[in-house]
Amino acid sequence: MKDGLGPPAYADILDASKRLSRVAARTPLLACPAADVICHGRVLVKAEVLQRTGSFKFRGAYNLISRLSGEDRARGVVAYSSGNHAQAVAAVAELLGVPATIVMPGDAPRLKIEATRGYGAEVVLYDRYGESREAIAAALVAESGATLVPPFDHPMIIAGQGTVGLEIGEEMTTRDMAPDIVLVPCSGGGLVAGTALAVKHRFPAAAIHSVEPDGFDDTARSLRAGTRQQADRGARSICDALLAPTPGELTFPINRSLLAGGFSVSDEMARAAMAFAFRHLKLVVEPGGAVALAALLSGKVGCAGKTVVVVCSGGNVDPDVFSAALAPAPEPRLASG
Amino acid sequence: MKDGLGPPAYADILDASKRLSRVAARTPLLACPAADVICHGRVLVKAEVLQRTGSFKFRGAYNLISRLSGEDRARGVVAYSSGNHAQAVAAVAELLGVPATIVMPGDAPRLKIEATRGYGAEVVLYDRYGESREAIAAALVAESGATLVPPFDHPMIIAGQGTVGLEIGEEMTTRDMAPDIVLVPCSGGGLVAGTALAVKHRFPAAAIHSVEPDGFDDTARSLRAGTRQQADRGARSICDALLAPTPGELTFPINRSLLAGGFSVSDEMARAAMAFAFRHLKLVVEPGGAVALAALLSGKVGCAGKTVVVVCSGGNVDPDVFSAALAPAPEPRLASG
Repeated sequence: MKDGLGPPAYADILDASKRLSRVAARTPLLACPAADVICHGRVLVKAEVLQRTGSFKFRGAYNLISRLSGEDRARGVVAYSSGNHAQAVAAVAELLGVPATIVMPGDAPRLKIEATRGYGAEVVLYDRYGESREAIAAALVAESGATLVPPFDHPMIIAGQGTVGLEIGEEMTTRDMAPDIVLVPCSGGGLVAGTALAVKHRFPAAAIHSVEPDGFDDTARSLRAGTRQQADRGARSICDALLAPTPGELTFPINRSLLAGGFSVSDEMARAAMAFAFRHLKLVVEPGGAVALAALLSGKVGCAGKTVVVVCSGGNVDPDVFSAALAPAPEPRLASG
Repeated sequence: MKDGLGPPAYADILDASKRLSRVAARTPLLACPAADVICHGRVLVKAEVLQRTGSFKFRGAYNLISRLSGEDRARGVVAYSSGNHAQAVAAVAELLGVPATIVMPGDAPRLKIEATRGYGAEVVLYDRYGESREAIAAALVAESGATLVPPFDHPMIIAGQGTVGLEIGEEMTTRDMAPDIVLVPCSGGGLVAGTALAVKHRFPAAAIHSVEPDGFDDTARSLRAGTRQQADRGARSICDALLAPTPGELTFPINRSLLAGGFSVSDEMARAAMAFAFRHLKLVVEPGGAVALAALLSGKVGCAGKTVVVVCSGGNVDPDVFSAALAPAPEPRLASG
C-alpha cells in the first residue's frame, strides 16, 4: 500500500462506472472473424482506442480528478507519463477547469506531446534515460501544492481502469457468453489489475493474462517469482506506453492474486498486430496498445475452442510509425497447426 | 421502379434490423470533441467501418441474400462492385453456404479483391473504362440461373442499409439528442436513401445530405434538377467506392423526396478527413468512406450550434493509399470564421 491507501474493491469500480457514465465512451466489444480463423477460437476485441483521448487512461484520470475538492482543484494537478496518461490528465483537467502540468519524456511520440498541449496543459520535457520523472513531478508538487495523479498506483486510478473489465463482463453477459481468456496490455499494471477485479467478480474461471513488450516483462517475471521484479536494464521497445520498469506497489498484489500469468511479445509482433488491426478491424492501434492482440496472433496463447477477449488499449501513434507497421506486414500466423 | 419492385417502407427497415440482429455489428456512434471545435457544433460519427467486412454493405447484402429460397441459394449469387459490396456479398454467401461470383474492376484496391477471394467467392475482373459490368453480370446470371444482388437499386438492399439510420435514431433517442444534420457518403444512393427513410421517420426535421466526390456528384445535381443526372464523363477520384455514374431508379425518388441536398468534396479533402480520423477517431476510413467527414471539416456545411451526425461508411483501403493520406495532411480548417 502507498500513502496509506488500500487496494480498490469491486464496489469502487461500480462507483467509477457511475461517475464515468456521462463523460466516457462505452467502447465496443468487436467480433473478429479473421482472428477466429487464426486462433481456432472465438475472439472479441475491446476497442479502447475509441475511448476519449485515444486510450483507456481517461477512465482512471477522470475517476481520480473528479473527486478532488474545489480547493485541491484550484491548486492544480501534476502527472508524469510517456503520453497516454498525459493526454488523459490534460483532457480531464481541461474538462473540469483544473490547471495541469505534465512531465513527459522528450522522446515521446510527437502526437502525444502535441495532444497534451492541445488540451491546455503545461508540458515539462525530461530525458527518459538520464532524469527521474518522479523527482521532477515531486518538486512541482512541493512547489505548487498541486495533486499528483499517478499513472497506475492509486486505488481510484485502478478502479477507473477497471470499468474496462466491467463493460466486458456486462457485454458478455448480454450476449450470453463467458470469457475463457482475457489478454490485457500491461505497463505498471493498473489496467490489467482493474480489469481482473471486474471480470473475475462475474466470471471467476476466466484466465486473465498481462501482455508486455519483450525485455519489459517485469510483471510476467514478478508473477512467476511471486515478488516484484525489474525490467531489463537497457531494454528498448517501440511500445512507448509500456516501459514502466517494475510493477506497482498497489497493482502487483492484485495481479499476483488474480492473474493466470503474463506473456511478452517482440516489436515485430506488435507491428504485425497493428497491421492486422488496420486490415481486419479498421482500428488505429499504437504499438503498446497492440501487444495483447500480438500475443493472440503469435500463437503463444492456447486459444483453440476458447472465447478470448483482447483489449486494444490505445491508438495514439505517429503517422510514420503507423505507416512503417503497415509496410512490410506479413499476416501473422500460428507457428504450427 | 425496377423489375416491378416498389420502394422499401419503414417497416422493411425494422424487419431488416431483426434479421441482422444476430449477425451484423451494431456500430458505435462516437463523440468527436476535436470536430466539435472545428465546426462549432456537436458532432457524432457513425463508425460503420467497424461493420463486418469493413463497410455498411454487409447489411443490405445479408438482408437480401438471407431471404432467398433454398433453390435460389443453390444456384448461387452474382454481384458487380468496386469492392465493398463485393466483399459483403462474398462474406454473406460464405456465411449462408451460397456460391458467389463477383464482377470487379481490375483496378479495384488489392485489399478489396483479396478479401473478396478470401471469403471464397469467384472473382471476375473487368476493365472499368472499357467494359460493362452490368453486361458481364447479366451473362453470368443467364448462364447459371444465379440471383443478381444489385449494389443499391433493390428495396431489400436499401432497407438493409437503412438499419444504419435506424441505429442512429435509436441511439440519439437514448442519449436524449436529436440530429439537425446528417451527412452520408453517396454513390448509387442506397445508403443515404435507407438512412433518410429511417432517420426522418423519427426526426422529421433532420436535414439529410448526400456527399459525393467532385465530378461524381450526380446525386447532388439530380437533386437540384429534380431528374436523374449523370456524373462527369472522364472524371477521376480516389474514392473508388463512390464512382456510380448516375442515381438509382429506386433510390433517386426516395432521395428527391427526403434529402435536403447534396455536397461534393475533392480528393484532397477526402485525404485530410482520413488523416483526421486517424488522429482523432482512431478509425481507418477509406477515401469514399471519409467524404461526409470531409464535407463537415471543409466548412461547406453550416454546422454552428447544430448536432451533426456523420457516417463513415467504409474502411477498406490499401496501406499505401492510407499512408499517403497521413503523410502531408495539414489539419483541415474552416475557410473562414
